[in-house]
Amino acid sequence: MNVTHGLRRALQVNADGLATSYEGRRRTWAEIGDRVARLAGGLRSLGVGNGDRVAVLMANADSYLELYLGVAWAGAVVVPLNNRWSVPENEAALNDSGPKVLVVDRAFQEIAARLAGMLADPPVVVYADNDDGAPPAGMRGYEALLAASEPVPDAMRAPADLAGIFYTGGTTGRAKGVMLTHANLMANARNALAEGLFGPGTVYLHAAPMFHLANGCGMYSVLLSGGSNAFVAAFSPAAVLDAIERERVTDVLLVPTMIQMLADHDDGGRRRDLTSLRRIVYGASPISEAVLDRAAARFPDVEFVQAYGQTELSPIATLLPWADHVGEARRRGRHRSAGRATLSVDVRVVDEDDRELPRGTPGQIVVRGDTVMAGYWNQPDATAAAVVDGWMHTGDAGYMAADGYVYVVDRVKDMIISGGENVYSAEVENCLAQHPAVAQCAVVGIPSERWGEQVHAFVVPKPGSPAPVPDELIAFCKERIAGYKCPLSVDVRTEPFPLSGAGKILKRELRAPYWEGRSRAVG
Amino acid sequence: MNVTHGLRRALQVNADGLATSYEGRRRTWAEIGDRVARLAGGLRSLGVGNGDRVAVLMANADSYLELYLGVAWAGAVVVPLNNRWSVPENEAALNDSGPKVLVVDRAFQEIAARLAGMLADPPVVVYADNDDGAPPAGMRGYEALLAASEPVPDAMRAPADLAGIFYTGGTTGRAKGVMLTHANLMANARNALAEGLFGPGTVYLHAAPMFHLANGCGMYSVLLSGGSNAFVAAFSPAAVLDAIERERVTDVLLVPTMIQMLADHDDGGRRRDLTSLRRIVYGASPISEAVLDRAAARFPDVEFVQAYGQTELSPIATLLPWADHVGEARRRGRHRSAGRATLSVDVRVVDEDDRELPRGTPGQIVVRGDTVMAGYWNQPDATAAAVVDGWMHTGDAGYMAADGYVYVVDRVKDMIISGGENVYSAEVENCLAQHPAVAQCAVVGIPSERWGEQVHAFVVPKPGSPAPVPDELIAFCKERIAGYKCPLSVDVRTEPFPLSGAGKILKRELRAPYWEGRSRAVG
Repeated sequence: MNVTHGLRRALQVNADGLATSYEGRRRTWAEIGDRVARLAGGLRSLGVGNGDRVAVLMANADSYLELYLGVAWAGAVVVPLNNRWSVPENEAALNDSGPKVLVVDRAFQEIAARLAGMLADPPVVVYADNDDGAPPAGMRGYEALLAASEPVPDAMRAPADLAGIFYTGGTTGRAKGVMLTHANLMANARNALAEGLFGPGTVYLHAAPMFHLANGCGMYSVLLSGGSNAFVAAFSPAAVLDAIERERVTDVLLVPTMIQMLADHDDGGRRRDLTSLRRIVYGASPISEAVLDRAAARFPDVEFVQAYGQTELSPIATLLPWADHVGEARRRGRHRSAGRATLSVDVRVVDEDDRELPRGTPGQIVVRGDTVMAGYWNQPDATAAAVVDGWMHTGDAGYMAADGYVYVVDRVKDMIISGGENVYSAEVENCLAQHPAVAQCAVVGIPSERWGEQVHAFVVPKPGSPAPVPDELIAFCKERIAGYKCPLSVDVRTEPFPLSGAGKILKRELRAPYWEGRSRAVG
Repeated sequence: MNVTHGLRRALQVNADGLATSYEGRRRTWAEIGDRVARLAGGLRSLGVGNGDRVAVLMANADSYLELYLGVAWAGAVVVPLNNRWSVPENEAALNDSGPKVLVVDRAFQEIAARLAGMLADPPVVVYADNDDGAPPAGMRGYEALLAASEPVPDAMRAPADLAGIFYTGGTTGRAKGVMLTHANLMANARNALAEGLFGPGTVYLHAAPMFHLANGCGMYSVLLSGGSNAFVAAFSPAAVLDAIERERVTDVLLVPTMIQMLADHDDGGRRRDLTSLRRIVYGASPISEAVLDRAAARFPDVEFVQAYGQTELSPIATLLPWADHVGEARRRGRHRSAGRATLSVDVRVVDEDDRELPRGTPGQIVVRGDTVMAGYWNQPDATAAAVVDGWMHTGDAGYMAADGYVYVVDRVKDMIISGGENVYSAEVENCLAQHPAVAQCAVVGIPSERWGEQVHAFVVPKPGSPAPVPDELIAFCKERIAGYKCPLSVDVRTEPFPLSGAGKILKRELRAPYWEGRSRAVG
């Protein structure tokens, strides 16, 4: 099975059914099928062949869905770029993946022009605006490309063929391109469907960023089950509530920060009909009980389901159903867990020698199954370190209770999850360390009601230098890395950092005062 | 993923949950896990290695489920024998598959002894009685084997490894062993779960024969989702109703004949609590609307779902949900279809050159997907004829309507489905033709309220021979082939058969008078 299977099935059994609805534009599966086949023909005409990469730098839109399908239909590999990354970060991803075509929308056209100019082997840039306007100079128009192209047959990629490269931040500061095959993505989709998520009849709202595989989980599942798709270009509480009401949305995936914003949104006393909404899947970053309770109070008929995983797992590993958030399960603390292994994967907690640990003993969480990535693009060493005997080493520390529930207690990789985005401390530290006045730095996550965690930096000035000003350090970072990775707060210290016997900074001690009385666990 | 995955998961997340309940004996997953690991150890001690075959000739029982799991846990290949077949038929299957071990129960011990004596390379016979009695001479006791064996680790077969050989009747009279891999069986299970069948919380009743993959579909799905299993040794309406009430059964797979017997069963005015039952999946053999209506009236809160497929497809290809049996869908005649392609497979109707036909045009139904069998055991030519470019040629004729619904109109292979069992005309004709007084014969299916179709033979006597007596011909068959394959009625004719231009007997004309005013279509 490949990722276009669901489209082929929809064309067979539900050609007149609603496929996409965005900004008043509604298309049936027959229309989407025709557009996808033309898009694939257009990509072929631009020199895209089987296995070639097509990068996308766009906000959410129905055309983004067409691109996920059309790139696969053409036999190519999609590279969804993080539209919150800085230009140097996306330049690195483009240089690494070497796409033949880069598709951008209006919001990212200037960045795209800069990026294309920087690359040694510049891609054709396709401009997918949301109207019929002429493309900027040097770019091809998306609609014109479709209109000028004949539909081509599905390239019918095999399950083991590469479907996408999804970039994630790296522990060493170098982004890693997670290679996922058609089989990987469809295994996850079938797994989600088998767990009762995103089944036939779903109206899925693309509210989380479409470049993220957290949203991709919902997208590929709904594409397989033949549900329909609604979109908001970018998250805002009002836009999401409007879309739910207008499109009769049934399911949406949100990161905890979005849930908090929705729960606390002042809707001006509007009476809305949100009765269609039945489920909110939330990503596995820390969410406070208080926020979850406020959200549940605001959406009393909605089930909240936690999904824990990572891009390398296509992405789901465990699920915590709504029943585990309430009643007796809650009294037993299960709502603080990440749930249990989904139907299709094996989950274990192992020690440093990969031996399974007894229940209750913390170690590294590892996952095996046909959702485990094919590897990191161009990084065989990183792949070999991460996937051992088929087990993906998540980098997360946790334990498994006697009843199989997994509790994530820390992240081995020293990663901060802020507003649903992964921030690797090492990357921020690498940036701060370039500042002339910084001698030593350590970056940790501290609790934030809004972001789950916020990026916090400890800095020790260079002897003889004037102590750096926090705002200046933050501005320094903003020029170099994505805004969401930059510290929101900086603590300039004069005393040296606490060190381990091996001379490693004891971040746990730095972090401890901020987390007193709170759990850093997921859920 | 392999077929023991669900057991490993159940041991992790639900060790104390109910796994099996049979004749008052209730076992948890922890107990089943221990017994399966010991059974695997026992099989290994009998010389069974990876890829070796273990045949089973038993009625339904909890131990049959243990065998499905234990044989896989040992790394071996299960060969479930049809316990309605004659001794020569099963002898052929055993000679073909060459098992190291044959497991039988009390009902089949005498047959097993005879079979073992006939084989060139006789297997070890294990006697799985339902109590602690001593095994017959020359056989090993099942419980004693478990008690004497240490648990061994799961052999962890790979997805592409063979999991089972399931024998089906052949068009040429030679039975074919359908080779299904772990990936095949798990793809079907995930497909069923994704379609909303057999999910977590299911209490599945093994009422259809466990050697059949129709029941196997439910079994492998429930093993994956971690539901629990109840059993009746052999189908009877009273036993099934008792089991539903006692075990709070939620789901059961039945063939249409069983549904008819249940619908028409005189329960002596008993008041039963059957409220747990939510779904009856019925296999794709002809079921009359009248029977379905009577069954629906008897089980007003139960959803009937039709599954169409074949062993070669692991086994499901299409599904017809309950909603398509009632209301507007029924007025449109959808209840007479076999439903639409399930989420994971491609279904097409093609002409004799494998070109897809326009909607509404009858041709052969072909199916592609990771549920398509690995091939026929020892029959590469039959495999090559059946699976072309990944498309399984079902041998069934049908058409696909514009909305994707598949209507089965006839069986290319000239197969009769009687009481849920496949009967190949050629096999019955081969048998009848051996009778000294038979010149010509033709076997067809004619309508039967009880069996869906019943096997009917037309016979032309040899010139100069006395006309054979129907009862004598039926008795002649019963000595040679399984009872359910034997004609229930015989029409001895004096005029020659109608022939096609190519000299082929026109069975359609022979059959026509019996089917006047009826549809032979599935559903």
